[in-house]
Amino acid sequence: MSKNITSQTLQRLPIYLNYLMSLSETIKSGNISATAIAGALGLNNVQVRKDLASISRGGRPRTGYVTAELISDIESFLGFENRDGVIVAGIGNFGRAMMCSESFSDYGFDVVCGFDCNQDIVGTSVNGKPVRHISEMKNFCLCENIKTGIITVPEKYAQEVCDIMTDSGIKYILNFASIHLNVPESVNVHNENISLTLAMLARCNFSENRS
Amino acid sequence: MSKNITSQTLQRLPIYLNYLMSLSETIKSGNISATAIAGALGLNNVQVRKDLASISRGGRPRTGYVTAELISDIESFLGFENRDGVIVAGIGNFGRAMMCSESFSDYGFDVVCGFDCNQDIVGTSVNGKPVRHISEMKNFCLCENIKTGIITVPEKYAQEVCDIMTDSGIKYILNFASIHLNVPESVNVHNENISLTLAMLARCNFSENRS
Repeated sequence: MSKNITSQTLQRLPIYLNYLMSLSETIKSGNISATAIAGALGLNNVQVRKDLASISRGGRPRTGYVTAELISDIESFLGFENRDGVIVAGIGNFGRAMMCSESFSDYGFDVVCGFDCNQDIVGTSVNGKPVRHISEMKNFCLCENIKTGIITVPEKYAQEVCDIMTDSGIKYILNFASIHLNVPESVNVHNENISLTLAMLARCNFSENRS
Repeated sequence: MSKNITSQTLQRLPIYLNYLMSLSETIKSGNISATAIAGALGLNNVQVRKDLASISRGGRPRTGYVTAELISDIESFLGFENRDGVIVAGIGNFGRAMMCSESFSDYGFDVVCGFDCNQDIVGTSVNGKPVRHISEMKNFCLCENIKTGIITVPEKYAQEVCDIMTDSGIKYILNFASIHLNVPESVNVHNENISLTLAMLARCNFSENRS
């Protein structure tokens, strides 16, 4: 799997997939060109060609892509064949939002379980997914082979929860607590600091329609 | 105000400020060196010097910074003298999380009001802040001189809400709906696509402790 894909390309993959899935069976069982996809989605021809080249077996001159192959290449890149279970630690408003988000599935993720230590929440379910006690995390993650976790606990608990996650075999952590987390070399962390993002936007004019 | 400050520097400013505020009145009424701050916070000397130079009137050789001046320079950069009111549109779990977040205040932001069109929510309050009907947004923002808005509505309503925000004088929009928003040249948008971030992290090994 390419590690060099840009977030812009990654962001367009579900759009390509949704479009291809919406096509008639006739086209799905035939070929489609990058030009046709670009035209239908109002995207730049060259960009679409580059995007698809980075994740597919490639199109053929004149005939274009075998539609079914392209669909399966995108699905396989997005991890649809082997969807990744995701856990959420800290089931406050933020954690609930994560458990209710529909958009994770666009990238082959399923939020499968929430964890908290508040006995009023433990044993309940959010969006049809169970909330378990944080002490059950390790067993759950090892049994279910969970590699991805989201931390939405208050700052003061974040490192402790992070340690439990890494001890549970989690390799990818999306951290919403605004502290730096210490993790082993083998674990990847992304810190999502929303107030910092807002400050960059409103105090430093850092924004996407400007950049 | 510097537009070239990095997010790393911006992220450290509240840390410097909290430290300086925690000092004794004696030191607050005297001087402090970048070296002393770096030592106390376990940060790199040169980094601290660069950070402070980017937002302050600068330290003096040997004597260092006038502590009170440095505090006011950081506070002024972070907008504490003239705190920015922020509104949130879409008071689901995500919107509630935004209205309850304490960390915005670290950067001089106050979430002052939420907006929704669900009559079960309109008229209630979240974290002591009112939730009003979306039709009241324009009046509210113009009266309160609100320039910053957060969009946490479902995708299908996001552009409509964005249009109401720009019509209400909002200049900075943090968008959590995973669609591209069309805005006038004068408006800055940052799109926060959490599922995309998770995909970049877990599918492409894009993470901060690696980069």
